[in-house]
Amino acid sequence: MSQPTAASDLQLLDRYWRAANYLSVGQIYLMANPLLREPLQPEHIKPRLLGHWGTTPGLNFIYAHLNRIIRQRDLNLIYICGPGHGGPGMVANTWLEGSYSEIYPHVSQDIDGMQRLFKQFSFPGGIPSHAAPETPGSINEGGELGYSLSHAFGAAFDNPDLIVPCVIGDGEAETGPLASSWHGIKFLNPARDGAVLPILHLNGYKIANPTILGRASDEDLQQLFSGYGYEPLFVSGHEPEQMHQQMAATLERAFDNIAAYQQAARAGGKQEGIPRWPMIVMRSPKGWTGPQEVDGKKVEDFWRAHQVPVAACREDAGHRQILEQWLRSYQPDDLFDEQGRLKPELRALAPQGDKRMGASPHANGGLLRRELNTPDIREFAFDVKAPGSQLAQATEQFGRYLAEIFARNQHNFRLFGPDETASNRLTPVFDVTSRTWLEPMKPYDEQLARDGRVMEILSEHQCQGWLEGYLLTGRHGLFNCYEAFIHIVDSMFNQHAKWLKVTRKLGWRKPVSSLNYLLSSHVWRQDHNGYSHQDPGFMDHVANKKADIVRIYLPPDANTLLWVGDHCLRTWDRINVIVAGKQPSAQWLDMESAIAHCEAGMGEWRWAGTTPQGEEPDVVMACAGDVPTLETLAAVDLLRGYLPDLRIRVVNVVDLMALQTQDQHPHGKSEAEFDALFTLDRPVIFAFHGYPALVHRLTYQRNNHRNFHVRGFNEEGTTTTPFDMTVLNELDRYHLAQEAILRVPGLADRHPELLDDLQERIAEHHRYVREYGEDVPEVRGWKWPSETGDGAPD
Amino acid sequence: MSQPTAASDLQLLDRYWRAANYLSVGQIYLMANPLLREPLQPEHIKPRLLGHWGTTPGLNFIYAHLNRIIRQRDLNLIYICGPGHGGPGMVANTWLEGSYSEIYPHVSQDIDGMQRLFKQFSFPGGIPSHAAPETPGSINEGGELGYSLSHAFGAAFDNPDLIVPCVIGDGEAETGPLASSWHGIKFLNPARDGAVLPILHLNGYKIANPTILGRASDEDLQQLFSGYGYEPLFVSGHEPEQMHQQMAATLERAFDNIAAYQQAARAGGKQEGIPRWPMIVMRSPKGWTGPQEVDGKKVEDFWRAHQVPVAACREDAGHRQILEQWLRSYQPDDLFDEQGRLKPELRALAPQGDKRMGASPHANGGLLRRELNTPDIREFAFDVKAPGSQLAQATEQFGRYLAEIFARNQHNFRLFGPDETASNRLTPVFDVTSRTWLEPMKPYDEQLARDGRVMEILSEHQCQGWLEGYLLTGRHGLFNCYEAFIHIVDSMFNQHAKWLKVTRKLGWRKPVSSLNYLLSSHVWRQDHNGYSHQDPGFMDHVANKKADIVRIYLPPDANTLLWVGDHCLRTWDRINVIVAGKQPSAQWLDMESAIAHCEAGMGEWRWAGTTPQGEEPDVVMACAGDVPTLETLAAVDLLRGYLPDLRIRVVNVVDLMALQTQDQHPHGKSEAEFDALFTLDRPVIFAFHGYPALVHRLTYQRNNHRNFHVRGFNEEGTTTTPFDMTVLNELDRYHLAQEAILRVPGLADRHPELLDDLQERIAEHHRYVREYGEDVPEVRGWKWPSETGDGAPD
Repeated sequence: MSQPTAASDLQLLDRYWRAANYLSVGQIYLMANPLLREPLQPEHIKPRLLGHWGTTPGLNFIYAHLNRIIRQRDLNLIYICGPGHGGPGMVANTWLEGSYSEIYPHVSQDIDGMQRLFKQFSFPGGIPSHAAPETPGSINEGGELGYSLSHAFGAAFDNPDLIVPCVIGDGEAETGPLASSWHGIKFLNPARDGAVLPILHLNGYKIANPTILGRASDEDLQQLFSGYGYEPLFVSGHEPEQMHQQMAATLERAFDNIAAYQQAARAGGKQEGIPRWPMIVMRSPKGWTGPQEVDGKKVEDFWRAHQVPVAACREDAGHRQILEQWLRSYQPDDLFDEQGRLKPELRALAPQGDKRMGASPHANGGLLRRELNTPDIREFAFDVKAPGSQLAQATEQFGRYLAEIFARNQHNFRLFGPDETASNRLTPVFDVTSRTWLEPMKPYDEQLARDGRVMEILSEHQCQGWLEGYLLTGRHGLFNCYEAFIHIVDSMFNQHAKWLKVTRKLGWRKPVSSLNYLLSSHVWRQDHNGYSHQDPGFMDHVANKKADIVRIYLPPDANTLLWVGDHCLRTWDRINVIVAGKQPSAQWLDMESAIAHCEAGMGEWRWAGTTPQGEEPDVVMACAGDVPTLETLAAVDLLRGYLPDLRIRVVNVVDLMALQTQDQHPHGKSEAEFDALFTLDRPVIFAFHGYPALVHRLTYQRNNHRNFHVRGFNEEGTTTTPFDMTVLNELDRYHLAQEAILRVPGLADRHPELLDDLQERIAEHHRYVREYGEDVPEVRGWKWPSETGDGAPD
Repeated sequence: MSQPTAASDLQLLDRYWRAANYLSVGQIYLMANPLLREPLQPEHIKPRLLGHWGTTPGLNFIYAHLNRIIRQRDLNLIYICGPGHGGPGMVANTWLEGSYSEIYPHVSQDIDGMQRLFKQFSFPGGIPSHAAPETPGSINEGGELGYSLSHAFGAAFDNPDLIVPCVIGDGEAETGPLASSWHGIKFLNPARDGAVLPILHLNGYKIANPTILGRASDEDLQQLFSGYGYEPLFVSGHEPEQMHQQMAATLERAFDNIAAYQQAARAGGKQEGIPRWPMIVMRSPKGWTGPQEVDGKKVEDFWRAHQVPVAACREDAGHRQILEQWLRSYQPDDLFDEQGRLKPELRALAPQGDKRMGASPHANGGLLRRELNTPDIREFAFDVKAPGSQLAQATEQFGRYLAEIFARNQHNFRLFGPDETASNRLTPVFDVTSRTWLEPMKPYDEQLARDGRVMEILSEHQCQGWLEGYLLTGRHGLFNCYEAFIHIVDSMFNQHAKWLKVTRKLGWRKPVSSLNYLLSSHVWRQDHNGYSHQDPGFMDHVANKKADIVRIYLPPDANTLLWVGDHCLRTWDRINVIVAGKQPSAQWLDMESAIAHCEAGMGEWRWAGTTPQGEEPDVVMACAGDVPTLETLAAVDLLRGYLPDLRIRVVNVVDLMALQTQDQHPHGKSEAEFDALFTLDRPVIFAFHGYPALVHRLTYQRNNHRNFHVRGFNEEGTTTTPFDMTVLNELDRYHLAQEAILRVPGLADRHPELLDDLQERIAEHHRYVREYGEDVPEVRGWKWPSETGDGAPD
């Protein structure tokens, strides 16, 4: 253990802490009289008292001590504030260190600025109550709990000079995502990555309840975190002087150990094992230094301190007096000078420049972001001789491109996934890198390495949280996942979309790379698994977010996937969702056609249709997604055979948002463009990858919407053949052809025998598949008859 | 440690295990020649080999040993199979014990039945590959991983005679939800609840990766699970005889300890602390007893054993030989008689009747479900003197009803929530019961008790998982949650909806109580929190599921919430979503009006409109949700003042699915009913609680859809006043009134001054709220002018 810290140092530190606490209380309560230069009056107090006091003094305590360590050791730290509702503390500290006023000059470091600082908090037109994007130094809003430690690890990967202290509240620690995120150290390489210092802040209570870990014994906590692989260090108490002494000594030990582990790992020589990284368990009272009791009820060190501990300060003189005494207990005149500036001896306690945690460029990752070095996608093109004549695995083809991305971007690109990178056929990346693995290895292990950059853990939450932390600190990445199970992170997606929406309006937050999802193993091709693995609804979820943030792509084959993937990886401040199959399937477009098609977002496949240019079709056969495209073309093939004179137009949609109107989404097609493809009045048989309602929702403002007949996933599924899945949901070629015949006026009356024939084919499918366990030869052997087209994509 | 088990017993047990393994391999591979009475030929092998071998032998091993314990001690057990893709094992065991053939007589316990058993697995028209609803004894499909242990605890609550062994794969153990579910013992009362025996099955590998816990040392695991509060017991090896001996002894010790803890707790006397419940860490090879190597590559005890370890058995004689040797290694003739029946000495190893885990009524909870004893909601009615004249908190009113539910249903109803029951104003329930709390208590703690029935943990995953387990074993419950954060369990909702969809088609699965969500602290009233807490999209997510499963209700006030809540609690096999505010707000309908309105699902509020009966309105002002209803009525009040001759119709929607057509949803209104409310051609200004797109999606087939103008949440939010939130999203009274004026033909041209006046009111709102931090007096003081109506709801 390090030597005790000098008492004079700790007294200064205590004053700094008091200043932060004073400013925190001031933000929650005051709209005037910020330094209490006059007695507190009702009109000084905000009419609506909003915010959370309980966690804040502990956050301030930790911030002050981290400042000390940064100065002492000249470190790069960012502060992840798990209890983000302790926003007043983060704002107070960045104001004290000056980073706040540099970004928001009107909130100056003087009494006028302090008044604005106080008033703006949780006030209309002001700032939110959480460690939101508006808060300097934050990469974790902490509104929805559970992701702080994942974000911390994401920030530390490939950032060898960064140390990330991460405060985790005992509320957040009860969540599932947080509980698994402790495993992050098993993926943290002390040589190539930075460090994470988790600080579990046990103040004992949630909103109205004790916490599980707060009431656990030190012995159990010692075992729990040792079991996760850490060395737990305890800081516990309520008496400030003694707590300062403990905290200073504990942080010195923690940072000593981190430095030692890193030095050892970076000294060269064979690397083995995982260091016993330190983590801190800090027990301090909820609402520490606040009112002990209000109206005869316990407040400090109890859940009543969670939000606003004394509530009726405008109306009730007694409450107001408690507030005034509380504020004055911090002795503001001992902390701030006449002009409301922090006194010089306290100002000297903050780090300088970019070392201030509110000014770290790592917490404004766009400042550090370098463009991804991307190859020409043409180098990875699949050579399509004629549409539909060859099979390929789209994701495997894309995997070759990703391998090149890995080769060209050694320190700022990672691939994340819940143990599905190989299953999703991105295996070519393993020619270039491996999976990150620091636990013991066996001689027969494959594609594992301590410095691998494919990050696999069976937790979608960790994949998403790590990637978010990685992106928000200025790097690039891709999350590949089974389509159905991406719903596990619906709520994390929400929070990230909200974060991006706000940051786009903040000039000082520089753009970060987009969050890219590649969803494979999709609803139509599950094979080994069944109904539980069939859900295409993530697209619906995504479509609710702001149009300038979200994009959804459904490339039908390998070359279109290459264009889409490459495009997404080069964008910023967006969330891109790509749905693509991993199974061998028909390839439609050569690379130049794919580029033209994807750039347009959607378009007619003239080589597949039968409508002369410039004429109106009898029916539009539209499709989005690989399997719907296959079934649509197979239906067109049937219809061509049945009805050589039927004028069919085939439209394929890659960029789903192109379906919306231009005022709904920036990718939306104009009315004229849309009508030119989908006509004003002809039936549109739309085979869609997802739930049909999504197409209706995106197109309801379109002129021809009343004639859209959408087939998609209708929650009918099980473990069966791929074609049977489409039949169960009536998305198959037979049902699509039936629908076309039924919807073109008069056709069904003239050709009832065609409907009968299709019905018989469906019946034959059912008979055959149940007898033999595979699809009828007519389906298995089907290929697009390219000789009937003009031989090349337009 | 108990005495070693007799070698003869273990030999029998080993044969039983071999029988289960044989049947498991047979299911994955064979469609004919089930007992290998002739040499294996290509045509005996399925054309598509689907399923998962890796986890299965371990599951079978545990099943056989649990059978032994059940018989030895006459226990009630259900088997939660976390690695649900080990479905072949669960099917094999229930077939061996006879429970399978009782449910599915055509899969009889003889050679013909065995052939059907084999062929049906993962075969079109057959059964899925997982421990799906079709599998007897299952309450956990285990397709999406993470919820097994939560389900186990949910099953054990209030089930003192049930013990729930729960197998957790080392893959699943990496997920967040599973990582927090270990805390379940802190909520398990040994006196009133049953027991859970977690069996962490470490076979070391996922799909293509080692597992984190599989590679952790025994010392770390010992500490980790001790830290969680358990006594970890280790079973480790691969040599069957020795493993049987270990497992038998370990299970005896575990069940001894469980019995001792329960006896001590139930003997009376003061209860304290939490027992150190046993949990088992079982290390056994992945693909145990399967092929060691295939094509020179390691298979057993490696990830290559995950699915189908030897794949080309139809085409490749070498592979086929491996398969045949593998199957014959179990010595089928030593296990099954000439007729394909399990030999008598092995049949005797299975428990009898309902003691068989595949036949336990606890795993088919509808068999045990008793109707909830519910009071008359009229006893809890809020006495509405005139519409809009009084304020009340809807959820608090409903809380009184819930308190009575608790009083009347002491052992089969629980309330679940992530520390938000008080925040959501359901506090009256604490007059009757408390929060479940078994960790140490402080003298000043409130509303905590060892036998409390309000279950609060800051993990939406646990709340959902516990409730699912509780419902699936035949009880009732309600999950109350912040609206935004219910997205955390989107994916769990999916899985439960899928489970219900399948069970409804299985005659033998009896109906279970509906899963009920009460979403409060909704998007429009966040107060202390901001944008991160604002998301009404769960409704969109829910609406994608099968119409016969899902219901969404938006009661606008207390009496309507009472009707809806009471209705939902009395339904079965559904998922009901109720969104209701917790803040003091206007009350509109007296109880009789509320009942009539809710039974209709939606209807005209004639007392609020100005259109004489039988005449057509100029504009329909529609609303769904408490805040939209308030703003709509305030807009109507403004319009009445502006334009006394304007014929307004007010329509309120409680049951959102009533908007759909009758062929889309059973609650859908007929075309005539819908048109009678919404007209054929008049503008409809629809103020909606959620994202506007949802209303469009539900109504796009309606005749008047093109005239629907929907206002709702548009992702504009922050910490601000409640009214400012509506203005930011243009859902407020001023924007609604503007929209009405703009949409009624000619009105805006005749009355441009009204639009100016409304614009000025919006501007004044912005000025005032930013200056004073609260809403303009005109809004704060607004009440529905009941004197202008006919004085009573119709």
